Amino acid sequence: MIKKVDHIGIAVRSIEDSLSFYTEILGLQCLKIEEVPSESVKVAFIDCGNTKLELLEPTSENSAVWKFIDKKGEGIHHVALGVESIKERMEELKEKGIRLIQDEPKVGAGGAEVAFLHPKSGMGVLYELCEKNQAGGEGK
Amino acid sequence: MIKKVDHIGIAVRSIEDSLSFYTEILGLQCLKIEEVPSESVKVAFIDCGNTKLELLEPTSENSAVWKFIDKKGEGIHHVALGVESIKERMEELKEKGIRLIQDEPKVGAGGAEVAFLHPKSGMGVLYELCEKNQAGGEGK
Repeated sequence: MIKKVDHIGIAVRSIEDSLSFYTEILGLQCLKIEEVPSESVKVAFIDCGNTKLELLEPTSENSAVWKFIDKKGEGIHHVALGVESIKERMEELKEKGIRLIQDEPKVGAGGAEVAFLHPKSGMGVLYELCEKNQAGGEGK
Repeated sequence: MIKKVDHIGIAVRSIEDSLSFYTEILGLQCLKIEEVPSESVKVAFIDCGNTKLELLEPTSENSAVWKFIDKKGEGIHHVALGVESIKERMEELKEKGIRLIQDEPKVGAGGAEVAFLHPKSGMGVLYELCEKNQAGGEGK
């Protein structure tokens, strides 16, 4: 069912303020910065070799990431699991009793189709299912 | 400096109770379960293809993972970044003004040498530096 950890989502107040930690201090490369209006976030993808970090900056108070930071502060927000045939995987999980946050996949960063498992079904972890289109998503 | 994301550490109350979510629901493979007495935890490594999840179950109330769960509940605890020459990397980070939780690496799961950055230096994320010995650590 799971092909890989596609990325680790990290909630930050400001990509501008946090990016130098990743690029200058840790020496990692920022692949792309883009806005995802449907989620009210700006995202920066950081290449870690085998997977990516996705810095998530809220662009409005309506963003789930804004609420996360308001409640818990900056930190790890979710783990995205790379899958194929996301709709089939969602059905399979529902049949196994897993609660999903949405019934249909939505379009996330890089045009990927994404869907979140409810953290209560994920042992406290917010897991995202993520299916990349063939164009390669965020350029990698 | 960073070679890869070696693993994602996830705090759980009980490996026995959470393992079936990873193996039966998500279809992932558990590589190994071991105790790390120095950290008062039992750990289970789950293979995700490109990286691993490390389930961390506290074995005593003195464990940092016990305190984490007590305060925040089960969830993502840390991100471990694979490095070589960990002592040199620690010095390099200190020179760049990064606060480390320990001055010397300590022995973690699978005999790896590990050291944690202070979350205040890691934009709210607890990052671990992790150097695996040549024997291959948790068997992968």
